[in-house]
Amino acid sequence: MRIDIITVLPELLKSPFEASILKRAIDAGLVEVHFHNLRDYTTDNYKSVDDYQFGGGAGMVMMIEPIDKCISGLQAERQYDEIIYMTPDGERLNQSIANQISLKENIIVLCGHYKGVDQRVRDKFITKEISIGDYVLSGGELGAAVLCDSVIRLIPGVLGNETSALTDSFQDNLLAPPIYTRPRDYKGMKVPEVLFSGNFGEIEKWREAQAYKRTQERRPDLLNDK
Amino acid sequence: MRIDIITVLPELLKSPFEASILKRAIDAGLVEVHFHNLRDYTTDNYKSVDDYQFGGGAGMVMMIEPIDKCISGLQAERQYDEIIYMTPDGERLNQSIANQISLKENIIVLCGHYKGVDQRVRDKFITKEISIGDYVLSGGELGAAVLCDSVIRLIPGVLGNETSALTDSFQDNLLAPPIYTRPRDYKGMKVPEVLFSGNFGEIEKWREAQAYKRTQERRPDLLNDK
Repeated sequence: MRIDIITVLPELLKSPFEASILKRAIDAGLVEVHFHNLRDYTTDNYKSVDDYQFGGGAGMVMMIEPIDKCISGLQAERQYDEIIYMTPDGERLNQSIANQISLKENIIVLCGHYKGVDQRVRDKFITKEISIGDYVLSGGELGAAVLCDSVIRLIPGVLGNETSALTDSFQDNLLAPPIYTRPRDYKGMKVPEVLFSGNFGEIEKWREAQAYKRTQERRPDLLNDK
Repeated sequence: MRIDIITVLPELLKSPFEASILKRAIDAGLVEVHFHNLRDYTTDNYKSVDDYQFGGGAGMVMMIEPIDKCISGLQAERQYDEIIYMTPDGERLNQSIANQISLKENIIVLCGHYKGVDQRVRDKFITKEISIGDYVLSGGELGAAVLCDSVIRLIPGVLGNETSALTDSFQDNLLAPPIYTRPRDYKGMKVPEVLFSGNFGEIEKWREAQAYKRTQERRPDLLNDK
């Protein structure tokens, strides 16, 4: 998989891709991530990527021309399956969208910044608009990092133990059950006895019941989606 | 505001706090962000922060002892308003939660990693569990960065133009209307005429109608929340 990220702040994105699972996936050649600084595609001496809103109002708007240049340049080199714009009014990212995107070959991720991009960018280039949640961030960069993390960890071979991703929350529309590790007794707080029973059927049953209970208490909406 | 972030991967978190609005807020003294590497609170020679799950199963679990040490140490120094755990089964972050947290004085943010933390950590220390969305990430670090970004930009004085945050998506349960900037005509794609009318009442009306239309099409659920 190849991911091209277009941003005005490539430096903000650096560290999440230089640590942990994303770095391992990149080092192993399972994914290629390229950053494109939008300022490299500007035409004026000030390297402007944004300008005032037509019609007035607070906040700057990202101009279409540098984005057009950058995207067109990439498209001249290869076919892209999706050109994704990170925006709070996009479709909300969930595990099923992450699963779908993890099957793509080449994607472009455009990070909005300031007040957002000129609407014509969205009308002309964007094939998918994604929001990571109902809140506003100072830019699309963290959203892009979140999207990449959720997608890249699903690529086969990225997680050491492949069953691990399958037992995460949401993969079966249930939240994960409580988990415990040593010590068995910590300052009087004890681990449930069933986990020491050695009876894997019992343990599985307990975990399923706990997962169901937690989902019912916290996210009954997920049960309706089943 | 003071934010203490507890993590096994402080290096992953670095760049988002060294760029853009977060850096400006920190430099201006409007917020203090401290990173605590959980490995500094371990007791064994291997600096272990995680161990196998009781009862079997894939994925490692973060142990209670180093977390206890770190949190207790911080609590000995000052009072905390919230101890937040970033987890996919927490309450889903939204703009109203971000608004509430932006009014707090001191908060701790604990980043889960691996399969998550020992349940006893959640039972004993955590006052609020937050999820940034219905998807699984390789750790809570990106979630913590997202939470901090959404919160810090709401602290008065952080955004240059304070009206800017108020016209963002979600602040009034409406998505933002389309925005445009120069050029007026880009390869035949034109900006709506109303924005050049000079009639601010008309422009406001058009924007409201567009915001409403976009919300109705994309997120009718938000209109029910009004």
